[in-house]
Formats: sequence, C-alpha cells, structure tokens
Amino acid sequence: MIDYVRAPDAIYERSFAEISRIGALAALADDIRPVATRIIHACGMPDVLDDLRFSADLVARTRAAFDAGADIYCDVETLRHGVMRHLLPNGCALHCRISAPDVASHANEHGMTRASAQVDLWGGRLDGQIMAIGNAPTTLFRLMELIDQGKVGRPAVVIAFPVGFVGAAESKAELAADPRGMAYATLLGKRGGTAMAQAAVNALAGGLAT
Amino acid sequence: MIDYVRAPDAIYERSFAEISRIGALAALADDIRPVATRIIHACGMPDVLDDLRFSADLVARTRAAFDAGADIYCDVETLRHGVMRHLLPNGCALHCRISAPDVASHANEHGMTRASAQVDLWGGRLDGQIMAIGNAPTTLFRLMELIDQGKVGRPAVVIAFPVGFVGAAESKAELAADPRGMAYATLLGKRGGTAMAQAAVNALAGGLAT
Repeated sequence: MIDYVRAPDAIYERSFAEISRIGALAALADDIRPVATRIIHACGMPDVLDDLRFSADLVARTRAAFDAGADIYCDVETLRHGVMRHLLPNGCALHCRISAPDVASHANEHGMTRASAQVDLWGGRLDGQIMAIGNAPTTLFRLMELIDQGKVGRPAVVIAFPVGFVGAAESKAELAADPRGMAYATLLGKRGGTAMAQAAVNALAGGLAT
Repeated sequence: MIDYVRAPDAIYERSFAEISRIGALAALADDIRPVATRIIHACGMPDVLDDLRFSADLVARTRAAFDAGADIYCDVETLRHGVMRHLLPNGCALHCRISAPDVASHANEHGMTRASAQVDLWGGRLDGQIMAIGNAPTTLFRLMELIDQGKVGRPAVVIAFPVGFVGAAESKAELAADPRGMAYATLLGKRGGTAMAQAAVNALAGGLAT
C-alpha cells in the first residue's frame, strides 16, 4: 500500500505550513504575503520570491476596483477557467475574447496576436478594470503601448504573468520599471503562466485568510 | 513606441529557435524531442530538461492508444480546457469529473480529494486510455494504488505533472521507479502544472511537426 497524504485538509495545511517556513516571506507587507504564498503554492517553486514584484497599493486598489464593480479581463481561456468564481464579488464577470471572430480578423489585419488584438477591441472598457495575463507577452506589451498612446482605458490593476522566451521577460521588466499608474503583481524573467496568475487573482479575491 | 515582436509567426519561430539551441535536447530520442520542446516552451524553464523523464515507448503507445479510440482523462478542468481539441483524433473526448456531485460525495465519504475520487469512479473505464495529470498528486497516487489492488483499468499512457509541496515529488518518483506497465512522461520534483501537462498532450496529439 502506498503511503501518502490523502485528506484534503491535511494536504492543504501541510502545503501552507511548508511555504510559511520560507524566510523571505517575512519581508513582504502583511497584505501582500498571502498573494505571494498562493503564487508559490501554485508553482511549487519557492525561489520565485526573488523575482516577484508587487506595487505597494496592490491589495488596496484591487479591493477598491472590486468595490467599484470592476470585472476581470483575461488574456487566455485557461486563465478565465482557473479563477474561482465563488471568491469574486457579486456581479464581477470574467472576460476573454481570444476565440472571438472579430478578434481573429483584427489580429490578421494588423499582423498581431489574437491575445493582443483583444486589448484593441476592449479599448475604453478597460478603464478601472482588473487585467490578468497568464500567457501572452503581447497582451501586456499592447496594453502598455495603447496606454502610452491614450487609446485604451487604464486598468486599475494588472496581474502580469506572461511566460516564455520571446517578450515575457522584456514586457514584465517594462511594467515594473514604469507601471503607468496601474497597481500590479508580476514575476520578472521568462517564468510565469496561468497557474500563477490565477493564484494571484484568487488570493486577491479573498481566497486566503490572512 | 515600445519595441517588441508583434507577429505571431515571428514569435513562434523565435521561441522554438531559442529552445532548439538547448544542447541537452540533442540527447533525447527523435520522437521525444518535440514533446520536451513543447514542455519547455510552455514553462519558460530550460532546466526542466534535467528533471523530465519519459518512457521510451511514450510516442508509439500514445499513437496506438489514439488509434484504438482512447479518450483523455484529466485531473482538473483547466487542463481539460487547455488541450487543443483540433489536434485530437476524431472522436477522442476529454473527460474531467472533478466538479461532479457523485465525485464530491465519494470524496467526502472516503476522506480523499475530489481529484483522486474521480479515479475510483472512472474505474474500469481507464483501461487503455490516456490519463493527464496537471495538478493533483493524489490523482497519480490513487491511480497507482488502485492498479496495485487490481481495482481500476490500467491506462496505456499517463502524462504526470502534478505540482506542489505535498506528494508531487513523491508521486512522480514512484511512477518513474515503477510505471506499472504504463507509458509515461513526468517531471521529477515539486514543479509541474497544467501548462506543462497540456503541452505534452498537445505535442503528442500532433501539435509540433518533427
């Protein structure tokens, strides 16, 4: 008989007990620590702490955005499916248009990814919203570019975890250097992904008691 | 104006060109290399190569299972949503029952996770199928345990990427030490996740020309 931890409560407790022993967590602000904890829990990599960056106003501005009725705009469907709906405030919707026909035609017409074309089509609606990026560097690049051009609404918060070898590290470094008035959470470097992005959103939405 | 790579084709080419320069990929069998490449692409971490393990018959047995009409059984919904349906053979279905009421009641009754309770309820249907695990160590533990007890069908292939601090490293080490007659792909250690699992499935289903 294989010996392993079977009970959900025991797994949960042991996981968070192990993460809580990571010394560097103590350096984080009290309201940020649960967000970092959830991100580490999602990826199994304590050393992401070295590369995580948060704006000091992340939690306060996320709460304010939720209170003002903000929705969450996701770059990919797997992220939209990974957010725990029961944690979200009543009426908070999750949006992703990567598979929409008008996004595909806009992307083709302009030689851009569908992940970034969404930002063009969301346009002014992004003002004061929460944007969550778990895959595509081009979504983050396009958002910052259109903010600079005054052609898109400015999200209150951006949860930025694009991943990979082309643009992920560059787009997140640009965000951390100049967040353009947005509160943010991000992970510098090539690492990232929807699991970390959804963990951050779930933590911010109330998933972890502090 | 921000300078970044905008065109999907260019992003794709540069990503895979960068990954192809990873020397250790050359040591892999020709039919395994595209699978490893896709996994690295999904996570942005070339050093997962050190911890990836594949059975030599992975690709051949996956193809044979697909040819025999196998479905894919997923531990979590985000994995099910992440597999590219258009790559799958006609008639190949994706299953996940983690949110089913009978799974919840079975899990509660037996003090197990819903992710593992699914295995109990799938039972004999798993014979010759493809199982894909992107999150829950308990799904992998329960599968091996029930195979040892003769109480479940034996999948032809298991794509095993559970993640986290409790059971992930242990379950994958157990699989690699004794795959119990299954072809497999896995990543030793705490790292893993649905992005890597879906990348492996997509590569096996034909997502990367070799």
